[in-house]
Amino acid sequence: MHKPLAISMGEPAGVGPELILQLFEQRRELELPAFCVFGHAELFRTRAARLGLEVTVKACTAAEAQDVFETALPVVDVGGLVPDHPGEISAVSARAVIESITAAVSATLTGACRGLVTAPIHKAALYNAGFRHPGHTEFLAELCAQGGKPRLPVMMLAHGGLRAIPVTIHVPIRDVPDLLTRELVAETVRIVAHDLKKRFGIEEPRIAVAGLNPHAGEGGAIGREDQEIVMPAVLDLQHEGLSVEGPLPADTLFYPAHWAKYDAVVAMYHDQALIPIKTVAFEDAVNVTLGLPIVRTSPDHGTAFDLAGTGKASPKSFLAAIRMADAMTAVR
Amino acid sequence: MHKPLAISMGEPAGVGPELILQLFEQRRELELPAFCVFGHAELFRTRAARLGLEVTVKACTAAEAQDVFETALPVVDVGGLVPDHPGEISAVSARAVIESITAAVSATLTGACRGLVTAPIHKAALYNAGFRHPGHTEFLAELCAQGGKPRLPVMMLAHGGLRAIPVTIHVPIRDVPDLLTRELVAETVRIVAHDLKKRFGIEEPRIAVAGLNPHAGEGGAIGREDQEIVMPAVLDLQHEGLSVEGPLPADTLFYPAHWAKYDAVVAMYHDQALIPIKTVAFEDAVNVTLGLPIVRTSPDHGTAFDLAGTGKASPKSFLAAIRMADAMTAVR
Repeated sequence: MHKPLAISMGEPAGVGPELILQLFEQRRELELPAFCVFGHAELFRTRAARLGLEVTVKACTAAEAQDVFETALPVVDVGGLVPDHPGEISAVSARAVIESITAAVSATLTGACRGLVTAPIHKAALYNAGFRHPGHTEFLAELCAQGGKPRLPVMMLAHGGLRAIPVTIHVPIRDVPDLLTRELVAETVRIVAHDLKKRFGIEEPRIAVAGLNPHAGEGGAIGREDQEIVMPAVLDLQHEGLSVEGPLPADTLFYPAHWAKYDAVVAMYHDQALIPIKTVAFEDAVNVTLGLPIVRTSPDHGTAFDLAGTGKASPKSFLAAIRMADAMTAVR
Repeated sequence: MHKPLAISMGEPAGVGPELILQLFEQRRELELPAFCVFGHAELFRTRAARLGLEVTVKACTAAEAQDVFETALPVVDVGGLVPDHPGEISAVSARAVIESITAAVSATLTGACRGLVTAPIHKAALYNAGFRHPGHTEFLAELCAQGGKPRLPVMMLAHGGLRAIPVTIHVPIRDVPDLLTRELVAETVRIVAHDLKKRFGIEEPRIAVAGLNPHAGEGGAIGREDQEIVMPAVLDLQHEGLSVEGPLPADTLFYPAHWAKYDAVVAMYHDQALIPIKTVAFEDAVNVTLGLPIVRTSPDHGTAFDLAGTGKASPKSFLAAIRMADAMTAVR
């Protein structure tokens, strides 16, 4: 019997909890795999009542979740105080939010759960509780390292066969050229190739690497980084036997007939990877973290405070995140 | 009776001449407006024969073109030597290429032609003839200035209702943050607003301005330019009475339901504007130059040397460029 997927509850003032409740309510029609929420059981009861959802919430352990899932939403209760105020962030809930992530990661690392889907968090709401990580993903990498040096976590946005990975993420454009190194580009591509093989069952992944500058630098006429950093990294990877091409001009790379030739496209910065994905798949792209010892996916949206508590947010991306975590752990 | 559109022949070793010939051959089915090529008549005869196209080429003046267009491709002959070697660039043809642009601009400035469509050029092939402009568009701006100070030419990529304009164009990403100024952003948007009104008949254009950094800088957490440069520019424009919003996160701006709220999106750099356009409309986007005293459009592709002489290049974008120049000059 499969182990359940772990879901961290995310920011309670955001849309995460209601999307989880809605998806649970439709678990049979959607043929969802069993999952287990790490969070605050009472919050889920209150949020279900607020939205008029017929969902029973049952506090249990991860080991019991598979059975509970038939009749009730299984919640591994992490304790703490969680106010039911959709749209209003509160320092009070910060400890429970952090603990829900920590507990979900532990359960996935030990194998009690087979993969992790995280609901969106709001960093600013967590500062009072001492959260100092650049983002959700870096926090997960630290938790997975268990006190050791975290591996490089790699963010991939995926929608169908389109998979885009930014080498640099939440940094100013001004800092991108100096952050890019031959080793960082190469290591990112290695992690992508490794995980496409191990987690996605793609035997020989074909990977495109976008250039940093317009027209991939036009042979050195528009900036030197594409020839001095990206191209040497691609040559290194080719020498290692990987199927990698680049630097390729980013503007023509995301036309469907072009990206379809590759299993993944590695981009040099945030918008270069996210613009094409969100242009074609705003509502159901999935965020996948590569390079971790566990499978982790998340919906490709934030807390959407303006929609929280209304039941109007689309569960499409969260659903896609659950399905992808399911598929990735089925492959293994 | 309408004046003809002017078409500059572009690089003779590229696909420009054959696309012009193919479109001329289908002028009746496509209901094309009359146009007049500025170029080398003999090259067009040779290229037509090479491709087996039943096209008569007739050297004439711009004033005669409308009549000639019924029965033959009107070419205003610019002289010079033009070898018929598809795919092989040659310094010999450079003077004719430059002269075809110069003559086409003159004819459009004087009103002999009502708008200009340019076929793609290859800058490197023109260096021997003294071409030192950063690009085709900057050369056109200089020609239009007639020795005076050129106005800021603004590049717009358009496909249906999606119109994207990069504030900086063919420059390294490293240089983008320092090139952006409050005045440059504001002046670009002013030109866009002016031309949308004057050339596209949009009474009160709504314009979105993308942020430079991921998430439009996240309130200053990811770089300062969005708060210190882009936002003040947007406020300036709003004070002038223009309908402008920004800085908006670029990654979510190009989802159809989002950009559809705006008549144009102004982006901060090349790939930020071109990735979304080419992702959704690789083959039939049009490049429009705003801020010139004449209407100028061009296909959104290059010389495609690998396809030149084969007749296999798609004329979709060139066709769209002709239709857009036609529509823009019909509005006036």
